[in-house]
Amino acid sequence: ESRLPGFATHQIGVAGAVVDESSGKVLVVQDRNKTKNAWKFPGGLSDPGENIGTTAVREVFEETGVRSEFRSLLSIRQQHNHPGAFGMSDMYIICRLSPLTYEINFCTQECLRCEWLDISELAKTSETTPITSRLASLLLHGLEHGFDKIDLNMEELPAVYSGRFYQLYYRQFPILKL
Amino acid sequence: ESRLPGFATHQIGVAGAVVDESSGKVLVVQDRNKTKNAWKFPGGLSDPGENIGTTAVREVFEETGVRSEFRSLLSIRQQHNHPGAFGMSDMYIICRLSPLTYEINFCTQECLRCEWLDISELAKTSETTPITSRLASLLLHGLEHGFDKIDLNMEELPAVYSGRFYQLYYRQFPILKL
Repeated sequence: ESRLPGFATHQIGVAGAVVDESSGKVLVVQDRNKTKNAWKFPGGLSDPGENIGTTAVREVFEETGVRSEFRSLLSIRQQHNHPGAFGMSDMYIICRLSPLTYEINFCTQECLRCEWLDISELAKTSETTPITSRLASLLLHGLEHGFDKIDLNMEELPAVYSGRFYQLYYRQFPILKL
Repeated sequence: ESRLPGFATHQIGVAGAVVDESSGKVLVVQDRNKTKNAWKFPGGLSDPGENIGTTAVREVFEETGVRSEFRSLLSIRQQHNHPGAFGMSDMYIICRLSPLTYEINFCTQECLRCEWLDISELAKTSETTPITSRLASLLLHGLEHGFDKIDLNMEELPAVYSGRFYQLYYRQFPILKL
């Protein structure tokens, strides 16, 4: 790593794809106040010091009323000069979550619609964003071939110098589970 | 995403694992000025507006003199209250690169040693960091079973509202290549 200290250049946004494996459905929302109403995964910005998985679970609950737990990291988008970030850069991370509750009670300030949608339908529809469409195809692959083919799992490790912990996300294979 | 604009909370660091597939070796360095000399992948902080892959290639060249090209994203670490980030958070991303040149000409201000090391040796040695050790095992899996088993590939997509492009990193399967 560099010899010079840096400064913060990125905001972190996290979306949660809550996948119900038994029904093959995923929780999606449509934003209020958008010209095109496209299905997407609920999500939002990380609070300072908040872990990726915590943001995903919190934002999903705030937007949809559904409780869930973190399973894996799936994808990352990097965008510079982000309009919602005062010209800074944006890192948008998509996680896979498992539902703990199923009843939808969505935030009408943020969302126009909220549904459990068939993942296969989400992968086919044009009423979605390019990222959501690609992630739906990825989730379909996971449903059919096992989520171990698509997941980056989380491992918490101690930082030697500070006594704190950090989170490492990577593809874990059976032989690697130390 | 959230209704409120955010502010930057994270600095982005990127390391590059330059893998020579023909020899099964990877480029590693040991930092100068560390109490314990551990093998790690060269890397450093992203400049504002710089893409992940560009940072990896630039930092590898600055530290080691080896030219390379971006192949995939492999792993992410999130750490809060980072000592080198003025108490902000740090996102540290590890990429896989392919070498374009092989001759080492390392930066003696930053590095004590720099070598092409057998990936299998790096996966076994105790003279490394917990992250590097895990990534070496992951790379070994890639060498043996194909890097398509471990890679998150990059796709560049147009941002509808700004005319700019963003980079999406995800596991691409043959059926997904649209």
